[in-house]
Parts: sequence; C-alpha cells; structure tokens
Amino acid sequence: MLCRPKYPVITLTTDFGVQDHYVASMKGVILSVNPAMPVVDITHEIPPFSILSGAYAISQAAPCFPLNTVHIVVVDPGVGTARRPILVQAGGQIFIGPDNGVFTLVGASDENSKCFEITRRDLMRPHVSATFHGRDIFAPVGAAVACGKVLAADVGREIADSIKLDGLVAEQADSTTWRGRVLSIDRFGNIITNFRSSAFSFLRSEEFKINVGGHPITRYGTTFGEIPERETFVYPGSSGYLEIGVNQGNAALSLQCASGQSVTLKRGAQPQRPPEKA
Amino acid sequence: MLCRPKYPVITLTTDFGVQDHYVASMKGVILSVNPAMPVVDITHEIPPFSILSGAYAISQAAPCFPLNTVHIVVVDPGVGTARRPILVQAGGQIFIGPDNGVFTLVGASDENSKCFEITRRDLMRPHVSATFHGRDIFAPVGAAVACGKVLAADVGREIADSIKLDGLVAEQADSTTWRGRVLSIDRFGNIITNFRSSAFSFLRSEEFKINVGGHPITRYGTTFGEIPERETFVYPGSSGYLEIGVNQGNAALSLQCASGQSVTLKRGAQPQRPPEKA
Amino acid sequence: MLCRPKYPVITLTTDFGVQDHYVASMKGVILSVNPAMPVVDITHEIPPFSILSGAYAISQAAPCFPLNTVHIVVVDPGVGTARRPILVQAGGQIFIGPDNGVFTLVGASDENSKCFEITRRDLMRPHVSATFHGRDIFAPVGAAVACGKVLAADVGREIADSIKLDGLVAEQADSTTWRGRVLSIDRFGNIITNFRSSAFSFLRSEEFKINVGGHPITRYGTTFGEIPERETFVYPGSSGYLEIGVNQGNAALSLQCASGQSVTLKRGAQPQRPPEKA
Repeated sequence: MLCRPKYPVITLTTDFGVQDHYVASMKGVILSVNPAMPVVDITHEIPPFSILSGAYAISQAAPCFPLNTVHIVVVDPGVGTARRPILVQAGGQIFIGPDNGVFTLVGASDENSKCFEITRRDLMRPHVSATFHGRDIFAPVGAAVACGKVLAADVGREIADSIKLDGLVAEQADSTTWRGRVLSIDRFGNIITNFRSSAFSFLRSEEFKINVGGHPITRYGTTFGEIPERETFVYPGSSGYLEIGVNQGNAALSLQCASGQSVTLKRGAQPQRPPEKA
Repeated sequence: MLCRPKYPVITLTTDFGVQDHYVASMKGVILSVNPAMPVVDITHEIPPFSILSGAYAISQAAPCFPLNTVHIVVVDPGVGTARRPILVQAGGQIFIGPDNGVFTLVGASDENSKCFEITRRDLMRPHVSATFHGRDIFAPVGAAVACGKVLAADVGREIADSIKLDGLVAEQADSTTWRGRVLSIDRFGNIITNFRSSAFSFLRSEEFKINVGGHPITRYGTTFGEIPERETFVYPGSSGYLEIGVNQGNAALSLQCASGQSVTLKRGAQPQRPPEKA
Repeated sequence: MLCRPKYPVITLTTDFGVQDHYVASMKGVILSVNPAMPVVDITHEIPPFSILSGAYAISQAAPCFPLNTVHIVVVDPGVGTARRPILVQAGGQIFIGPDNGVFTLVGASDENSKCFEITRRDLMRPHVSATFHGRDIFAPVGAAVACGKVLAADVGREIADSIKLDGLVAEQADSTTWRGRVLSIDRFGNIITNFRSSAFSFLRSEEFKINVGGHPITRYGTTFGEIPERETFVYPGSSGYLEIGVNQGNAALSLQCASGQSVTLKRGAQPQRPPEKA
C-alpha cells in the first residue's frame, strides 16, 4: 500500500478549529493512502468562512515549503452547492480546495499558474457527503496526487474562469496616495496591510501618513525593540508587507481594526491642522 | 532502536489542551521507542473530563484511519484511582486508555471487539506517577504494541466487564417517537444527535418534529446552501447522524443546547395548537 | 536533498499561537532541508513573551524525548535587537533559540551543559527579517544541525555569559521555611510550584502550611480521587514539583494565582490563632 511519494509533503489549512475530529479525519484518509506521508498543519484557526484569511495564510506559508508540496485548503462556505473543487498549479506546488477565491494570492504569484476542475469521481471517497468535502474529496485527491497515482493535470479539465477575490492588490490613487486593505490581524494584534514593503522604501527616510479607521500612523521602525513602549508604528513585516504594530501592545485592539478594512498611505509632509479649541 | 512498525500510525485524543507540555511528553515517550513513528493528533480539546465527547470524537475519527492504527485516548477523571487501564481491539484497530466508558462507541461498532486489562508493568515507564498515566502508561504501552514488541493480547488478561456509557444509542419510544441525545456540539455550533441518518430517511419526504430543549425543528435539508440564512434545520451530517444547524449561524447558541442533552423525534404531521391568546 | 539525520527529531516551542502561519513557515523551512524530518510541537501557546513559561515547558517536555533531539524554542521579546541567537547542549540534546533566559532550566539540569552563540550567516536564510528569527535563523540552523550538515559546536564560538532567569530555584529561608515561586498554571488550573517533590517528602506524614497569595494550604494527597470535591490540596505532581490543585475545580482561579507569584512552605504545626471575634 506504500508508495514512493512524487510530492513528499501535504499541508492542511482549514477553518475547522482543533476541538473536533474533522482535521484528523482528513489526515486519516491521507494516511490510509500512505501511512508515512508527512502531513503538516498550516492552521485550522482561519475564522469560520473567511476566504480572505485563508488566502492570506496559504500565500504566506507556501513559499517556505519545498517544491512539490501539496497544499489542501478548506475554507468552504459553499460546500454542497454548485461551487467547483479545483486544483491549482503555481510556483512549483499544488493547491487543492474549493473554487471560491481562496487561491487568489497564490495564483497571482505565478503568471504561469494553471487551474483544473476536479471531476474524477474515482479519486474521491465512495460516498461523498454534502457537508464535508475536506474528507471526501480534497484529502483523497490530494493524497492520490502526492503519491503519484494521478497527474495533477489529470484530475479534470483545465479552466480559466476560477473565482478571484477583488481588492487584494493595493492601488495607487494619485501621485502621493495609495489605497489598500488589511489582509490579516495576527495573534499579537499586528495589522498586516497589502502594501508591499519593497514598493514603499521611502518610508524609511521621508514623512508619510498611514490611515486606518481614522487613526493616523506617522512613525516608521524596523524592530519593536527600537520603539518606545505602547507607541504605534509601521514596519516592513516578515510577511513582505507593511505591518502596523504597537511595542508591547496590541495594534488591532488599540486601533479597533479588523481584517478586510481599508487603509490609505500618503507620501510627504501633511499640512498641520490648527489645534482644536477647548 | 528503530523497529519496523507492526502498526504504522499512532493517534492521540485527550482533554489536555495544547497550552501545556503534556501532549508533547506523550509524543516524546513514543518517539523514544521509534523516532520515525507517525503520531497524529485527533484532538486535545475534549472538554475536561468529558468522557462522552471523547467517546464521540474517537468513534468518528477512527474509521478514517488505516487498519492497524493504534489510538491512544486519555480523558481520565479517575486517574490515580482503581480504574483500570485497558486495550480494546475493534474494527481492525487498537484503542488504549482508561476503563471509563470512553471506548463505548468504538466497541459497539464491532461485535467481535475484545478488551484487555493492561497489567504488564514492564511495558510502562519505570516510575508511574499518580496523575499522568498518558505519559507513564498509555504512551509507552501504545508504542510497544505499535512496534510489535508485544502482542495486543499480551498486555494483560481479557476482561468482559469494561465500563460502558449509557444512553449512547437512540431508542424508539412508540411507533412514531424516538428518544436520543446530543452527542456533540461542533466548532460551528452544529448539534450532532445520536439518530443515525440512515434510519430516518423518511425525513426527506414526510413531516416530522424534532425537539431539543423545547425548540421544535421541522425543516429538513441536505446542504447549508439550500437553506435561507439564519434558519434552523436538520440534515444528514458527515458524522452519519442527524445534525441540527443554522445556515450562517450557530445552532447550539440559538437553541441553548449542550452535549448530553435529550432530543426527541416525532414522525408525522403535528396537531395544530390554537394560537396563544393575547 | 534527503539526508540521514544525525538527530532524528526536531521539536518546536513558541508563543506564536496556532491561528497564524508562523509555525508552519518554520516547519516548511525545516522540511525544505529534509522532507522526512519529524517535527513535533511542544506547544505554541506560551503566553506572549513569557520567558518563564517557555523555560518551564521545554524543561518538562525535553526529558521525554530521545537523546539527540533538537529543540527549537522561540519566545523572543527581543527579536531584532542585539540579543544573541544561541545553541545549548544539555542532557544529550540540543536547544536552539534566543539568549534571554529561556534555557535556564534545561541548562541547570546538566552541569556539563555548553552554550554557543550562533553566528554562522551561511546557515541562516538568505534574507533575515528583523521580526521573524524563528523562520530565518532558528529553523534553518536547527535543520542543518539535525541533518548533520554542521556540528553543534561549529555554529559559532562557545560563550559563558548566556542570560539566566533569577529565582527559578526555591530557597530555604530558615530551618522550617522555604521560599519559592509558581512556575506555571496548567490547563486544569493546577499550580506548579518550584518545590521539588523529592525534597519535601515530609509533607506526607507531618503538618505543614503552604501559602500562596494569602491562601493557606495544609492538606496533602497523592491523587485527585482521594480528595473531597472542591477541596484544595498539595500533591507531588507529574512535573516532579509540588503542585496545588482542587479536586474537580480550578486552583489558580480559586486562589487567584498567577505564574511567577511567590510561594512559601512552612514545616510543622502552626500556632493556632484565636478565632476572629464576631
């Protein structure tokens, strides 16, 4: 029953949480194909049904994994409806999950990415439930691909109309203004924007103002250690994006900021407003 | 020190949570026997001391795993007392844990299941603490069995009086009424009953009323997508049981329902009560 | 790309939580060196920045793991500042993380322990971010050591001035009094002190009083089962330390006790105070 895996690692990203047996059921299905297959959790704490958070998490984790990793992502509010199961090839890796936009970021990172609708019934579990395609479709298809029982391109026909999330890429509004959004809030309350740090290197040396929910941020730093306690600042995060943090504090709480929220960035000194009258 | 495992996968199910080192200590003990043994978490978020939740979780996850998997389950309010450590053979798999009813469902699923009291002191850790049998008894015994160092039937004498949980199987009260209970609440707030979906296929086409804590449910569906938002309905769950859900909502919260609670199901049209007077 | 690992298991202990992709990014980096390397989570729920909790968790888990395990610990409030990355050899195992005291307990357990500053830039990721040394330094160095690509002693020069946490060892104040502190609160609310059980065996047979935050504890037991419900008692924990628990209750909540808090233990009968007047 053992196979020499074509793809040596499978990862799982879901909104299933870890209190139930759901994730383990998927792992059992995979290990039933190959008991020695390494299965790595990306996270199972994607907020329920948050496709944006799932898209962000897998786009961040995938580049750290070896080529030929199979990533299964199940954030699937449309399970049981007509939404398609898909397989995406991008960056030398395989992504398997529902066609709802969750692969927008990983697909955008590779201009040669391909997408296939998964239709091969023989690769799925004999009984496919209406509510748990992670166990019944995505896990067995992922294990079959990883084991080399089927070529990625043979799970179904190639499609060009897979669903994309809007607004994931920040846009320049005028010569000194950019509009973006919050991709994610991490455990420490740091706010991850979708402004690529590499495109905004002027923050290091020039004045600027970032606005999130009415709160202005004008301080730049590269480490938490260099910032006074409780102060809010923007820094080039390990994500590759500009992030907003508070040293020894929680930026999302103090700025009352949520995932998806819009952010603007203005370059240059801001006109001083007269102080408010008492 | 490596062995060719007789049983290629070990799983762990506990109420230890993941903030402490307890689960890792068990894994370390297993990997000390065989560093290459795959150890898979079912869940460690069983509510503390909830034998019913543990029994449900392992019964759901086990069938997805390969034959010859060793499942270690530690939900153990009686640790340190006279309660026995046991090994259950059922469905081609091995289950190891305390004798407190946590294997009631997996045992009931195989009429040829066998149970052994674990008494072989030489299979345990040299010092057995009074409070952590997961690390000191269940993990080393599980690893020894998985590695083929001892036959499952040789861990101690076979016993016939292992403890069973009552009321896990729904009962027919009269020709149109069944009484069951809530086996579990999942992360999404879906309520899993112990009514086997396959025995209640008439719900698809006939009128019925399910009652949980005074709340009547009369709507049936097969997917969340087909139900109006915020509406409560019953559906054949991926668990194999009837489940109660709210589309885009949390059924357990809105029905104030808890694990273990009783549920009744009545077949047929219900007599209309006159509307309450103002 | 596969190697025959010199050290067959890597563990991870962090305060990253499991909702974000951070832990998975570290695993991806390790698996990129060796896709078959077992990577075991100790815990990722160390309270953010709590070096004491990290020091306790790794000191408890490590002895259960095989010799030659590589333990990576990332509780790192000083990331990005001048604090050094270090590698500690102790008890036949390797520990890798920041030099902030998190290895105080594992280092103290082996009088021959050695510590090295990690300075070999070629072992790290090409771009080292200022905020995520877990991914950019500790994971790749740990994987390189585990795979035998570099000797532990060759990651940098040996140092003798690594940072140690104060007060981790309980002290005798006078002939009948000892002063210690709370090392940890576990999921069940049990309070783990730093009094070694083996040094206080007189509790079994003599009168004593333990004081935590003004609450006296005078009852001793060895298992929860022997104690009346809701009663507070001290017992020799599976940690090797005296622990304070409440049968079927939460000791930390009822004694309002936190990690780090001081604890005193007095041997012998206490003078009776006259009852308070009404």
